[in-house]
Amino acid sequence: MTKHSDTKVAVLGLGAMGSALASAVVKAGYVTTVWNRSPRKADALGAEGAVVAATARDAVTASDVVVACLFDAASVREVLDPIADSLAGRTLVNVTTTSPEAAREFASWAAERGVVYLDGGIMAVPEMIGSPGSSVLYSGSEGAFERHRPLLDLWGESVYCGEDAGMASLYDLALLSGMYVMFAGFMHGAAMVAGAGVSAREFAGRSAAWLRAMTEGFAGFAEVIDGGDYTVPGQQSLEFSSLDDLLTASAAQGISTELLDAVQKLIQPQIDAGHGKEGFARVFESIKHPA
Amino acid sequence: MTKHSDTKVAVLGLGAMGSALASAVVKAGYVTTVWNRSPRKADALGAEGAVVAATARDAVTASDVVVACLFDAASVREVLDPIADSLAGRTLVNVTTTSPEAAREFASWAAERGVVYLDGGIMAVPEMIGSPGSSVLYSGSEGAFERHRPLLDLWGESVYCGEDAGMASLYDLALLSGMYVMFAGFMHGAAMVAGAGVSAREFAGRSAAWLRAMTEGFAGFAEVIDGGDYTVPGQQSLEFSSLDDLLTASAAQGISTELLDAVQKLIQPQIDAGHGKEGFARVFESIKHPA
Ligand SMILES: NC(=O)c1ccc[n+]([C@@H]2O[C@H](COP(=O)([O-])OP(=O)(O)OC[C@H]3O[C@@H](n4cnc5c(N)ncnc54)[C@H](OP(=O)(O)O)[C@@H]3O)[C@@H](O)[C@H]2O)c1
Ligand SMILES: NC(=O)c1ccc[n+]([C@@H]2O[C@H](COP(=O)([O-])OP(=O)(O)OC[C@H]3O[C@@H](n4cnc5c(N)ncnc54)[C@H](OP(=O)(O)O)[C@@H]3O)[C@@H](O)[C@H]2O)c1
Repeated sequence: MTKHSDTKVAVLGLGAMGSALASAVVKAGYVTTVWNRSPRKADALGAEGAVVAATARDAVTASDVVVACLFDAASVREVLDPIADSLAGRTLVNVTTTSPEAAREFASWAAERGVVYLDGGIMAVPEMIGSPGSSVLYSGSEGAFERHRPLLDLWGESVYCGEDAGMASLYDLALLSGMYVMFAGFMHGAAMVAGAGVSAREFAGRSAAWLRAMTEGFAGFAEVIDGGDYTVPGQQSLEFSSLDDLLTASAAQGISTELLDAVQKLIQPQIDAGHGKEGFARVFESIKHPA
Repeated sequence: MTKHSDTKVAVLGLGAMGSALASAVVKAGYVTTVWNRSPRKADALGAEGAVVAATARDAVTASDVVVACLFDAASVREVLDPIADSLAGRTLVNVTTTSPEAAREFASWAAERGVVYLDGGIMAVPEMIGSPGSSVLYSGSEGAFERHRPLLDLWGESVYCGEDAGMASLYDLALLSGMYVMFAGFMHGAAMVAGAGVSAREFAGRSAAWLRAMTEGFAGFAEVIDGGDYTVPGQQSLEFSSLDDLLTASAAQGISTELLDAVQKLIQPQIDAGHGKEGFARVFESIKHPA
């Protein structure tokens, strides 16, 4: 293992994700000090070459950059509040999932204590860390982002979202919203065909391919949304996109229509307001400006 | 142009989709007779080498296989009912989008009149016809499907779903449900970040890449759903998948929470019933067996 750079890195929190992050840093040859509340979880990292610290304070004082990958905002406060003095002058990269509000609070908390703060949102599962599909969103100190790019890039594509520390989290939550909604939509489809004897496995393959192809529609919707003119020609109209057939078929299968009802409730008011001939992208307006 | 096979093909309905289908057939060298209610739309096909028929009956009597690509079930009835006698002994491939119920009615209607019936659901937009991303689902006569594979394969991957004529439509509607739900989820995410100055265009690129990557999760969900044991280890738990943070952040942005509320309403009852530690795939049960 070669010493990669002068930057010394601490990783606090060695759950599934923290361990994956720490492992990538160790493998890249950084001097890496790790800490976990339950000490046993540090064993594997120790074997890989990380220094195992007995306390979070020890890990922090040994390092220039402190990566926090704990459970939630409360656990970050619980770990860092008592050792805030040791963080002064160092850079804190908090990749724990928190709300935008909590990220902004951490940024203020850090600023008051002379800590450089970068918030991160990890768009990957632990197994993906360091592979091409992985990306991590950052916001807060742009200087820290630029200075530590070589470190951050070890985990995936590093994307800077802005000085507002809450931005990475907001972006993260926006992407996760799309994911959970898509997952639910997949399960709705699987439930529709299940009654006719189609296995979820067979449906999953086809649905994944179909939805991947359909993501190509996003760019067209986005152009219309950004342009603000929902009447530009060539769009699929709201009228054409009525979910009536989908709702009828779902009800005929005896499955829940709640999810489709919610989408229909975003479409129908636009039609009722006289926009039926305009593009489907107008659903954005129903969401952005609720009645 | 070479005569490709002895099969003579009629295409009724030359809207955006019917024209794309007919064009692929003409290009492949089939003797192709086309008809459209408004005659002008047949001009381009005529120039490509199709025979333009003055009436639907003329097109049918000139052909072995009749492809109907009209607006909806009612328009198919309107066109075919008066000329049902001419269809006897021929094969009708109806790729007009209809409900599963309507497809079964067409199958009975056809059987009573000695017409071989194949129902189709096109999983593509007209520009995709004949390209690798396009697929068409079929159900009804398996003999017709096998016999006319060379013709059907001109439009995309041909998938046979079963003898029940309603099956292709049900599958089609299940895939479309996933698509509309995913589109709505994308727009929800775009609305979340819009207030923070992120353009829909910038969000679209990242969201499309993210959701494409996340479709890889479907296979895992499907395995659990088909296995029926939601306690198998290694799954993301329902508890972990609470949408509280997403809902709070959405409300803070002043946007509609209706869509996420609907997903949360599929998650929460499972947690309330004591399944919080089990896998997210349990959402399928909320949909399949509504309260
Ligand atoms: N896993 C993923 O796929 C994924 C993806 C994106 C983002 N994330 C985010 O990454 C973060 C970590 O996730 P994970 O998957 O690594 O979770 P995890 O496996 O459950 O690990 C949680 C970690 O937090 C520690 N912890 C919890 N409460 C603590 C407290 N009060 N004081 C000190 N340490 C505490 C745990 O220590 P103990 O070992 O002592 O319990 C453990 O190290 C989360 O915010 C998660 O949302 C995860
Ligand atoms: N376009 C797509 O992306 C797409 C994708 C998958 C499936 N589909 C399905 O394919 C079918 C055709 O779609 P399309 O995009 O081609 O639609 P379209 O461009 O609107 O064309 C509709 C066609 O139906 C004809 N028509 C409507 N009512 C009629 C009636 N009462 N009698 C006779 N002809 C009638 C129209 O004739 P006139 O020209 O005389 O009006 C036209 O040829 C639909 O069921 C659609 O759901 C389309």
